[in-house]
Amino acid sequence: MPKAKRKDQTSSTVLTDKELRTLDAHWRAANYLAVGQIYLLANPLLTEPLRPEHVKPRLLGHWGTSPGLNLVHTHLNRVIKARGQDALCVWGPGHGGPAVLANAWLEGSYSQTYPDVSRDAAGMGRLFRQFSFPGGVPSHVAPETPGSIHEGGELGYALSHAYGAALDNPDLLVACVIGDGEAETGPLAASWHSNKFLDPVHDGAVLPILHLNGYKIANPTVLSRIPESELDALLRGYGHTPIHVTGDDPDQVHRDMAAAMDDALDRIARIQHTAREDGVAERPHWPVIVLRTPKGWTGPAEVDGVPVEGTWRAHQVPLSAVRDNPEHLRQLEAWLRSYKPQELFDEDGRPREQVLACVPEGARRLGATPHANGGLLLRELPVPPLERYAVAVDKPGATLHEPTRVLGDLLESVMRATGERRDFRLVGPDETASNRLQAVFDASGKAWQAQTLPVDEHLDRHGRVMEILSEHTCQGWLEGYLLTGRHGLFSCYEAFVHIVDSMVNQHIKWLRVTRRLPWRAPIASLNYLLTSHVWRQDHNGFSHQDPGFVDHVLNKSPEVVRVYLPPDA
Amino acid sequence: MPKAKRKDQTSSTVLTDKELRTLDAHWRAANYLAVGQIYLLANPLLTEPLRPEHVKPRLLGHWGTSPGLNLVHTHLNRVIKARGQDALCVWGPGHGGPAVLANAWLEGSYSQTYPDVSRDAAGMGRLFRQFSFPGGVPSHVAPETPGSIHEGGELGYALSHAYGAALDNPDLLVACVIGDGEAETGPLAASWHSNKFLDPVHDGAVLPILHLNGYKIANPTVLSRIPESELDALLRGYGHTPIHVTGDDPDQVHRDMAAAMDDALDRIARIQHTAREDGVAERPHWPVIVLRTPKGWTGPAEVDGVPVEGTWRAHQVPLSAVRDNPEHLRQLEAWLRSYKPQELFDEDGRPREQVLACVPEGARRLGATPHANGGLLLRELPVPPLERYAVAVDKPGATLHEPTRVLGDLLESVMRATGERRDFRLVGPDETASNRLQAVFDASGKAWQAQTLPVDEHLDRHGRVMEILSEHTCQGWLEGYLLTGRHGLFSCYEAFVHIVDSMVNQHIKWLRVTRRLPWRAPIASLNYLLTSHVWRQDHNGFSHQDPGFVDHVLNKSPEVVRVYLPPDA
Ligand SMILES: Cc1ncc(C[n+]2csc(CCOP(=O)(O)OP(=O)(O)O)c2C)c(N)n1
Ligand SMILES: Cc1ncc(C[n+]2csc(CCOP(=O)(O)OP(=O)(O)O)c2C)c(N)n1
Repeated sequence: MPKAKRKDQTSSTVLTDKELRTLDAHWRAANYLAVGQIYLLANPLLTEPLRPEHVKPRLLGHWGTSPGLNLVHTHLNRVIKARGQDALCVWGPGHGGPAVLANAWLEGSYSQTYPDVSRDAAGMGRLFRQFSFPGGVPSHVAPETPGSIHEGGELGYALSHAYGAALDNPDLLVACVIGDGEAETGPLAASWHSNKFLDPVHDGAVLPILHLNGYKIANPTVLSRIPESELDALLRGYGHTPIHVTGDDPDQVHRDMAAAMDDALDRIARIQHTAREDGVAERPHWPVIVLRTPKGWTGPAEVDGVPVEGTWRAHQVPLSAVRDNPEHLRQLEAWLRSYKPQELFDEDGRPREQVLACVPEGARRLGATPHANGGLLLRELPVPPLERYAVAVDKPGATLHEPTRVLGDLLESVMRATGERRDFRLVGPDETASNRLQAVFDASGKAWQAQTLPVDEHLDRHGRVMEILSEHTCQGWLEGYLLTGRHGLFSCYEAFVHIVDSMVNQHIKWLRVTRRLPWRAPIASLNYLLTSHVWRQDHNGFSHQDPGFVDHVLNKSPEVVRVYLPPDA
Repeated sequence: MPKAKRKDQTSSTVLTDKELRTLDAHWRAANYLAVGQIYLLANPLLTEPLRPEHVKPRLLGHWGTSPGLNLVHTHLNRVIKARGQDALCVWGPGHGGPAVLANAWLEGSYSQTYPDVSRDAAGMGRLFRQFSFPGGVPSHVAPETPGSIHEGGELGYALSHAYGAALDNPDLLVACVIGDGEAETGPLAASWHSNKFLDPVHDGAVLPILHLNGYKIANPTVLSRIPESELDALLRGYGHTPIHVTGDDPDQVHRDMAAAMDDALDRIARIQHTAREDGVAERPHWPVIVLRTPKGWTGPAEVDGVPVEGTWRAHQVPLSAVRDNPEHLRQLEAWLRSYKPQELFDEDGRPREQVLACVPEGARRLGATPHANGGLLLRELPVPPLERYAVAVDKPGATLHEPTRVLGDLLESVMRATGERRDFRLVGPDETASNRLQAVFDASGKAWQAQTLPVDEHLDRHGRVMEILSEHTCQGWLEGYLLTGRHGLFSCYEAFVHIVDSMVNQHIKWLRVTRRLPWRAPIASLNYLLTSHVWRQDHNGFSHQDPGFVDHVLNKSPEVVRVYLPPDA
């Protein structure tokens, strides 16, 4: 691989050797714990030679993305601690559950949430055993995972979730790891332009980290196989300033990643300062980090004579027959020992001081941020008395009214009442006015950071109505906003709400699982207003017909879904 | 608006004044016919002064996009005719039905398909009256529209449809107009990277035309409000060579658009020559045209004291009260007469020679290409006798088999038998191997034009297996491929097929409508293989659960949907 390089670098972080060693120790510890979760039933600290019965009978999990996620986590820890920064991370490659869990365990947030998985040898044993095991924890990042607002199942929504979390959280940094595979999906591709809607004054920052490990399940990724200059143009075209980190030598990558993180955070601080203190109203070009490291980095280079590290073969379980194949067993043991666990954990299995040197404290830990448990931050929405909006009807069937216009008045009141608190957003794919909700514009304009012209109406750098022609992005923004403890409404033509069927499925699953998790405080509901109904389609006709969304959600558990129809429906 | 400019221009087309006048006459005629459809019930040729009763009581339709679509159609006509080029056009802003219908009527393909809508005054009267009228034709591009494979309803799929149509059609040019609004959607954003999968040897060319008219329904578009340099970087990042055409002076835009079209087609011809004759295997950078003209161009500049032309207010019906408001009526008449209908149509309502000078002949007309009526080109798929793939089962429940592996063998045979014909494709989001269909790779590799490395397997510049991590793009490619008369299969994890729920809805609606259109020949079925079923999710667990897709399609008419379950399901 070419030596790392970064363009436009502004910060010149130089790690001391000691710092480098602590970061590397943390990273190795996380890698060790990730491999341990995938493979080990027993002997977690390798205090004895590895034997087949120490290994799980069924090997499940995703190794390939884990070393990259661990690297990001280690370096986020460093800057969070150094800067006293509040942060949340959205892990796009959430199938890399072993990495996220490893880090939560290392920083102690895991044991705090699940005391039986203590930060010692016994707890490490449980951490390993429970992973993707009957009665244990999911192999993917899930509602069960501390610090998470984003399930690692269906790919595509990481960045819109991250933006949703950042809105109206001015002090929050939302890091977002995007797999180069996930970057091929439509929802992800659309969501890059969210930066045209992020207010540097009232919103926090989103730091996308494009994880260019080169492969998906069985194929190279598009973005890793175009020239770097083309990728750079693409990201600049999205409105970002790219910072490239490339390499496979851990020390060098640590140095470059530390510098890249500082560069990114310095840029963010300058952008926020310029907007907040100097009042400059130009659209900022937020940084994005491109991290190009091998898939399955530090794992087995070759297995059964074929390359694995740095290829798609590292995606899941690189050594698949450990119990039956002595050579695989030997390779696994060598792999685990390559991290030097005895340097990383004391005899009781506790992470040594050096490993924890980069880890922040308390609610600054990524697994402990209250923003990822939004219900804790939720305030009741100031909805005015509904009677105030009652429409007088003298005789049934004698008068005509536009119900959404009335709703627009109510929303105006909610917008106004949350003007200071800023915890309510209205999203939609360019239909707020055609849905007759425009009264709301009297209380808040439409978020917009791109160019404006004199002819424009209701565009507002600080607006809380959000319109982008992407139902996926609207849904993702709102989910991220609600999951971090706020309120909102999505207004959508009935015909096109099917676009988000699968996102709705994911969100409903998330809600269902969180209900069984006592530590997760309930969040606000995701409210849809469906308009332009199929049965009133004289304008657009057949092209706009499909009433099935209500069917779709009614198939879900009534525990989490409610459908309200107008009295005359 | 700034004067038009084009970067990297290679062709130096100079229109003669005569050519310019014929192109402008065609464009004006199409604009006239578009406005006529939206407004007129009678008096189609304006042979008498316009009176309220000549105007439809309910005004429906989308004007804003129409002049741009008309401009594209006029200039496509020119190059198709000049070069004897086979072409198909996918109209992303298909809500601009008036424009597409106007052009089909002008070129005669409309009357050929619907003889009662003749190319004369009577037919023009019918064309106007039937538009978005009870018992008439849809206001959007629809299955009823000659030359169309793409319904103008849900936005997002224009470019993936265009690529699907171009695959294995080496002589075909597929132009694709993309609205700057549509460009905000996820499916559209993802599909730009389809150029990494287009084989310049066996596939045709796709020419995207980004229609930057600046607005959606009620908002500016993101891509029109970033600096041109940023947009240029974005398109280069997508792997394209942008050709910019910007302006609001019709003559200048005609000159620039003609030069841009020639430039684009010259580039395409060179790319194809280099790949086909010189055997060069580098990924080409296909041209893209960026057309930046006002929304509702040539329509009313102001209505009721507010600007309309060049704003979102031109999106649908710029003058809304024509029957009741004499000033609106006057403006409408002035608008219609501004095109000088008497110069364009003779007394019998037939387009004059000058108007038709640019129009190509026969099947070269965009409304008459057989590629848009794919059933005409369909050949039976050489499926081997199924018995050959029967799995011997001695005793029920006693042996284990992997059914998809067997299917892989069958698909291999189909791939092989279509090796010369090239009318079968297998698509999927990176799961062909994990779905155990890999036998197919013995007959065809995976389409891939980006960089390759020695470690890669089965990547093939000429492959017919297509894997991209975008269910939307897979579905769009396959729809485009089938609609142009070929065969294919989509293999997908059951959990994630919901991503394309809404696309499936659209496709099913399309199929249903075409069954009632005798001139539309039936096309091949869209076959899904759903794998990794919810009930077998020990690997990925809850993150991968949702069996509702079968429900979803079973809700549709049995006329067009079939579900097959394995005998042991
Ligand atoms: C929408 C969707 N389609 C398919 C999959 C199946 N899948 C799981 S992981 C993966 C590859 C992901 O690649 P990338 O995002 O680059 O992550 P990494 O390589 O870091 O694991 C795929 C295709 C999925 N999870 N979601
Ligand atoms: C997925 C989807 N969401 C919303 C709409 C409603 N809609 C119809 S036209 C339109 C604006 C389209 O803008 P653009 O693509 O730029 O077309 P043009 O401005 O040329 O009309 C919108 C949002 C739609 N058709 N499809």
